[in-house]
Amino acid sequence: MKKISKADLSIKELVDLIQEDFLKTNNLIIDQISSEVDRIPELSKHIINLGGKRLRPILTIACAKMLGIKNNDHITLAAAVELLHTATLLHDDVVDESDFRRGKKTSHILWDNKSSILVGDYLLGKAFQLMVKTGSLECLKILSNAAAVIAEGEVLQLVAINNIDIKESDYMKIIEAKTAALFSSACEVGGIASSSSGETRKSLFSFGKNLGTAFQLTDDALDYSGSSDRLGKNIGDDFYDGKITLPVIIAYREGEEEQRNFWVDSFNKAERNPEDLDKANHLINQNEAIEKTLNLANNYGKKAKRDLSKFPDTPIKTGLINLVDFSSIRDH
Amino acid sequence: MKKISKADLSIKELVDLIQEDFLKTNNLIIDQISSEVDRIPELSKHIINLGGKRLRPILTIACAKMLGIKNNDHITLAAAVELLHTATLLHDDVVDESDFRRGKKTSHILWDNKSSILVGDYLLGKAFQLMVKTGSLECLKILSNAAAVIAEGEVLQLVAINNIDIKESDYMKIIEAKTAALFSSACEVGGIASSSSGETRKSLFSFGKNLGTAFQLTDDALDYSGSSDRLGKNIGDDFYDGKITLPVIIAYREGEEEQRNFWVDSFNKAERNPEDLDKANHLINQNEAIEKTLNLANNYGKKAKRDLSKFPDTPIKTGLINLVDFSSIRDH
Repeated sequence: MKKISKADLSIKELVDLIQEDFLKTNNLIIDQISSEVDRIPELSKHIINLGGKRLRPILTIACAKMLGIKNNDHITLAAAVELLHTATLLHDDVVDESDFRRGKKTSHILWDNKSSILVGDYLLGKAFQLMVKTGSLECLKILSNAAAVIAEGEVLQLVAINNIDIKESDYMKIIEAKTAALFSSACEVGGIASSSSGETRKSLFSFGKNLGTAFQLTDDALDYSGSSDRLGKNIGDDFYDGKITLPVIIAYREGEEEQRNFWVDSFNKAERNPEDLDKANHLINQNEAIEKTLNLANNYGKKAKRDLSKFPDTPIKTGLINLVDFSSIRDH
Repeated sequence: MKKISKADLSIKELVDLIQEDFLKTNNLIIDQISSEVDRIPELSKHIINLGGKRLRPILTIACAKMLGIKNNDHITLAAAVELLHTATLLHDDVVDESDFRRGKKTSHILWDNKSSILVGDYLLGKAFQLMVKTGSLECLKILSNAAAVIAEGEVLQLVAINNIDIKESDYMKIIEAKTAALFSSACEVGGIASSSSGETRKSLFSFGKNLGTAFQLTDDALDYSGSSDRLGKNIGDDFYDGKITLPVIIAYREGEEEQRNFWVDSFNKAERNPEDLDKANHLINQNEAIEKTLNLANNYGKKAKRDLSKFPDTPIKTGLINLVDFSSIRDH
C-alpha cells in the first residue's frame, strides 16, 4: 500500500472542507474536455487523471470560500486554472521528453508528441472560454498574464538547461515564472470571485507566490533526497534530465574545484548514469545543499503564512496554513 | 525577380487603403514579442517574417474601417489575431514536421521543437493579453472559441491523416475549423471594434468563413497545380506530407478500382516519391479534381461577396471583393 505523505494528508483535509465545490470543479473540467474528436477527451482524461492533487484549483476554491462567495464563479475559475495547468503539463512532457509522470506513461508516449501539443492548445482555448464565462476582465488579465509568464519561464529554463553557471537569482526567476505565477494567479482569482478588495487580492497573490516557491524548492530538494514513491516522481529525475536546480547550484557554488569539475562534466554529457547520481548525491549532502534548499523553502513558507495572518481564523484558513507547513517540509 | 500574383496584388491594394493602421499593427506585434529571454523575440521575429501576407489582421482592420472606427481597438485586435495565428503556425510546423515555410527554414529547424512549442504558447498568452486590453468580452469570447476550434480541427486532421476514406463533409469540417474559423473571427472582431449591430457582425462572420474556405480550397488545388514560386509552398507538399485534401478525395471517389488502389497504397506508405506525385497529378487531372475543387472555391467566393452586398460601396469594400475574387481563383 502506498504511504500517504503528510503533504497529501493536508491537501485531503483542505479538500474535505470544500468537498462539494471540488467535485463540481472536477465535473466542469470533464465537461470541457468533451469533443467529437475522440482523441481529445481520451488524451485529456489521461493527463488530468495523472495531474494529481489539483492543488491549483483547490487554492482558487479555498481562497474564494475563505472570503465568502456570491455565485459559482470560483468553480468556473478553478476549472480554468486546472485546464491551463494541464495544457502546460502536456507541453512540458513533450519538451522534457519525459516518459513517465507519477509512475504512469505520459500522453506523448501513449499517443504522440503531435497529439500532446494540439490537445494542449485545445485545453488552453477551453480555459480561456471558461474565464470569459465569468465575465471578469480582471481574471482574464491575471490568467492571460500568467499564461505568457509561464511560457516565458519555460523558455528561460530551456535556454538555461545544462548551464551549471546559472545564478541563484536567475534560477529563482525560473521558479517564479514556471510555478509560482500560476499559484499566485489561482489564489488571486479566488479573491476576485469573492469580490475582495485590492489589498486582500494582493495578499492572496503574495500567499500563492510564496507557497508556490516553497512548493517548488521542496520538490527540487526531494528530487535528490525523497523516497521514490512520493508523487510518482523518481529520485534523480531532474539530474537525469539535465535540469539544474537549487541543490545543484548550491553544491556547485560551495564545492572545491574537483567537485565543480564533476558538475560541469556531468551536465555537459548527453546522458548521466546512476553512478553519476550517486556522486551527485554525495556532493549535495557534503555541501548541505538539501538542508539549505529546504531552509529557503521554509522561509517562503513563513512568508506565505504571514500573508494569511490578516484573514479571520476559519477552518479553511487553518487548512491553508497546514498546507503551507507540509508543502514546505514534505516527507523526505 | 519573383512574379507578383494577382492575389498578392489584391492584398497590396487593400493594404494601401489601410496603410497607417497596418503599420501600427505591425509595430504592436513587434512590441508584444519583446522579452528578456532572447530566444523569444528571435524565434518570434523569424516566424512572423515568414508569416507572409498578414491576411487575417488585414481583414480585421479592413472590416473595422469599412464600418467606421471609434478608437484603436481594431489595431489591438488585429495584432491579437495575428499572434494567435502565428502561435498555431509554430505548432503546425512542429506537428507537420515541415522543414520549410515560404522557402525558408522553419523555426523548429533553426532552433528546435521545444522552442517552437514554448514560444507558440508565449504568443498565445500575449494574444489574450492584447484582447483583454480592449476590454471587449465579446471579442474574448469569439477568439477563445476560435483558439479551441482551431486546435480541435488540427487534432481532427491529425487523426484523419493518411485516411483516404475521409468523407468530403468531414474534410470540409477540418477546413472550417483549421482555416475558416480564424478568418471569420478576424472579420467579426473587426465589426465589434466598429460597434456594429448583431446582424452586421453575422454578415462579417459569414464573409470571413466563406472567404477562408475559398482560400483554403484554392490552396489545396494549387498544391497539385500551382507554380512552385507561389507562396513559397512547393507543389506536392500536401501529398508528400500524407495530407488528404479535396483534389485527392475527389480523384479517389471518382476513380476506377485500379486508381483507388494507387491512392490507398500511396497514402499507406511511410513516404511518397516524385514518381508517385506524377501519377497522382495524372489521376487528379483525369478526374478533373482541380477544376471541381476550384469550382467549389468559387462558390464559396460568391457567397463571401454576397455577404458584403448589404454594406455601402466604399473603396475598402471594393478591395475586399477583389481579394475574394483573387483568393478563390489565384494564379495556377
